[in-house]
Amino acid sequence: MKKYYNPKKDNWASICERPLFDNTQIKKIVNDVFDNVKVNGDKALIQYTKKFDNIDLKEISFDLERIDISEIDINPELKESIDNAFNNIYKFHESQLFVSKKIETSKEVFCWQDKRPIENVGLYIPGGTAPLFSSVLMLAIPAMIAKCKKVILCTPPKKNGDINKAILYSAKLCNVNTIINIGGAQAIAAMSLGTKNVPKVNKIFGPGNQYVTSAKLNSIDYNTAIDMPAGPSELLVLADSKANPDYVASDLLSQAEHGPDSQVILVSLCKALIEKVEKSLKNQSKKLDRIDFINKSISNSKLIYFENKEEAVEFINEYAPEHYIINVEDETYFIENLVNAGSVFIGNYTPESAGDYASGTNHTLPTNRNAKQYSGVNLDSFMKTITFQKISKKGLINISKTVETMAEAEGLQAHKNAVTIRINDIKNE
Amino acid sequence: MKKYYNPKKDNWASICERPLFDNTQIKKIVNDVFDNVKVNGDKALIQYTKKFDNIDLKEISFDLERIDISEIDINPELKESIDNAFNNIYKFHESQLFVSKKIETSKEVFCWQDKRPIENVGLYIPGGTAPLFSSVLMLAIPAMIAKCKKVILCTPPKKNGDINKAILYSAKLCNVNTIINIGGAQAIAAMSLGTKNVPKVNKIFGPGNQYVTSAKLNSIDYNTAIDMPAGPSELLVLADSKANPDYVASDLLSQAEHGPDSQVILVSLCKALIEKVEKSLKNQSKKLDRIDFINKSISNSKLIYFENKEEAVEFINEYAPEHYIINVEDETYFIENLVNAGSVFIGNYTPESAGDYASGTNHTLPTNRNAKQYSGVNLDSFMKTITFQKISKKGLINISKTVETMAEAEGLQAHKNAVTIRINDIKNE
Repeated sequence: MKKYYNPKKDNWASICERPLFDNTQIKKIVNDVFDNVKVNGDKALIQYTKKFDNIDLKEISFDLERIDISEIDINPELKESIDNAFNNIYKFHESQLFVSKKIETSKEVFCWQDKRPIENVGLYIPGGTAPLFSSVLMLAIPAMIAKCKKVILCTPPKKNGDINKAILYSAKLCNVNTIINIGGAQAIAAMSLGTKNVPKVNKIFGPGNQYVTSAKLNSIDYNTAIDMPAGPSELLVLADSKANPDYVASDLLSQAEHGPDSQVILVSLCKALIEKVEKSLKNQSKKLDRIDFINKSISNSKLIYFENKEEAVEFINEYAPEHYIINVEDETYFIENLVNAGSVFIGNYTPESAGDYASGTNHTLPTNRNAKQYSGVNLDSFMKTITFQKISKKGLINISKTVETMAEAEGLQAHKNAVTIRINDIKNE
Repeated sequence: MKKYYNPKKDNWASICERPLFDNTQIKKIVNDVFDNVKVNGDKALIQYTKKFDNIDLKEISFDLERIDISEIDINPELKESIDNAFNNIYKFHESQLFVSKKIETSKEVFCWQDKRPIENVGLYIPGGTAPLFSSVLMLAIPAMIAKCKKVILCTPPKKNGDINKAILYSAKLCNVNTIINIGGAQAIAAMSLGTKNVPKVNKIFGPGNQYVTSAKLNSIDYNTAIDMPAGPSELLVLADSKANPDYVASDLLSQAEHGPDSQVILVSLCKALIEKVEKSLKNQSKKLDRIDFINKSISNSKLIYFENKEEAVEFINEYAPEHYIINVEDETYFIENLVNAGSVFIGNYTPESAGDYASGTNHTLPTNRNAKQYSGVNLDSFMKTITFQKISKKGLINISKTVETMAEAEGLQAHKNAVTIRINDIKNE
């Protein structure tokens, strides 16, 4: 753990730095994957799965419409928890539905926005150490509310080729149409280019390793949008003497267990709290399973003391955390002055893990300073905004001189003429 | 002009195809530009301006705070038109301001969204045949309403190094902070990487040629977001016997004058109208200045007849036009069934050029089928959505079992523990 007391602004950039990866080699591999999938389609997907996952795939695509949700064999307690989480996530994302309103910008010139679903979306759910069915809920529920026409989900296969029951149940609950048993850069290439068994999608969502992230960036070249560039997960906790140090430590540990490159930061307005949190981290971590990840992340973690809150808030905005716990007396000050963060958790009883699973907010969030320019996934991520305008004869007369003058000044005579030809007719009526 | 009568679905993909560019060579050049700007900063920018624009730049950056708007020498009629357009665009984009609402997803579990400005934004305004001051309004007005902290505008210099007065006036009117006298891929590289005179921005907006577009895609690798990948401009007009053929022709011509690669499509539900529009195109185009561009675009244009409206609407959604004029009797049917378009213009008296300049809607829109997955620029483009949550003791008890069960099933014990440690305390109180 590194400790900083009132660090000078000159040092903030280095404190805020995330681990840098040289992805030149990865980019090359991902380019080859795209080229191969473009030419060989499903054959390439089967070959990569054999090569990277050592699995002989018989079927790539699993049609969820074929099965009945009641037939999925899942532990009843887990089923109930997934159902509860579903309800909260659904409720929060449904509240984000857009209500269109017509604006009369000039007399009889009406403009409005409306939203439409992105028709075909692809969700990527990483494999790794555990089946991340919670990410299925986070991506498929807003797709369901947005009424996307086709939702496909790519996830690396299990060794025996089966699909994990919790993933299957969550996907079926959210009306996912098809599960594709493919992971890695080849899954992203397939969804971006389309193959015989994998439909081309308009937008790709979801987290993944550096290959997946690089492939998502590549897919933009093929008319595919992405939710955001993703990196290792992060948590910044802001605390003062009001915060319970054991709770703060438990939150930092929950972030640290994600992986050895997880980012864990404590910003404290109270020196004594830092010592207490440090002690609690040692005590609590002894009892945890993923101790290797935790030791690695915690050894890279940063504990930072600021004696004034103005500097603290400025530093936090510079860091732009993915997850941000505000656990201080004067929480209003920090909420009002917050500019850059993904998702915010307020008070002693709002641990990050509540939002990771069940409070209702989305857990697909911008990392690596991207909270400065990206939003987390929300209902809007699955829709496009379209503008509409309708102008009456009178309305067109009202803005005609403005349009004609501006078009002429930009040297666009035919633009001007499209107005003039109508105005001449109206005048001669 | 190519004409199609009830084209079969097998042919739609080729009809919808936009001109394809091989950008392999451009990508290489743009990579070199990024490398050069990264190492040599402003020096590289000055060298490129000498090389590509043949101009010796003395100053790169022009601080708009130094000047008073009343001192800008601009034709009063043009000034009044820009002011009128400003008012309409401002009014429409201001109506897009977000109103936050708290949602109680479970008892005493409160979740809400709020928006914050993207702090530093960069606007790119292409040079070319005319000063596109209208694009300054379209990008800088929403930045102003969003309260972005720093707005910088890059545009290629005039031969004498001066800044066009209409661009200067529009930029000052919208509180742009700095104008940078640099164009092309080097301008995008500078805003993405930052140099001594060009601040690094969080997001880059605006149209441009293939070099600019390729550079914008490159900038994503450097923690910079972009509005959208842009391509040549497009218009699809849907018309039936109710539409005035001269108006339809004038709209198609206004699109055709943009450049030789502009896309112009007429979908007609009436065969006779196609002939009338064709005749009117010939008559009107004779009187227009940019006849070379127009002849080229019109010769590539497509006139398509559909006898049933279901097929027409399906085709239009497949084409996903940037600009879409609905000029038919049953406009409601086509509005309700529309899924993919950038901006929609309804009726005989709503020419595209109204929205290009002054109705209030934004003219920075997705081209090249990107309307399937991207929105046009709007107020939200200049903001991020942040989620917040606050849970009481009672609220945490309500969702604790759900979180604990799911965390355990995902093998994330420390996530579970962050809830358990709090619940144990609450139970012991």
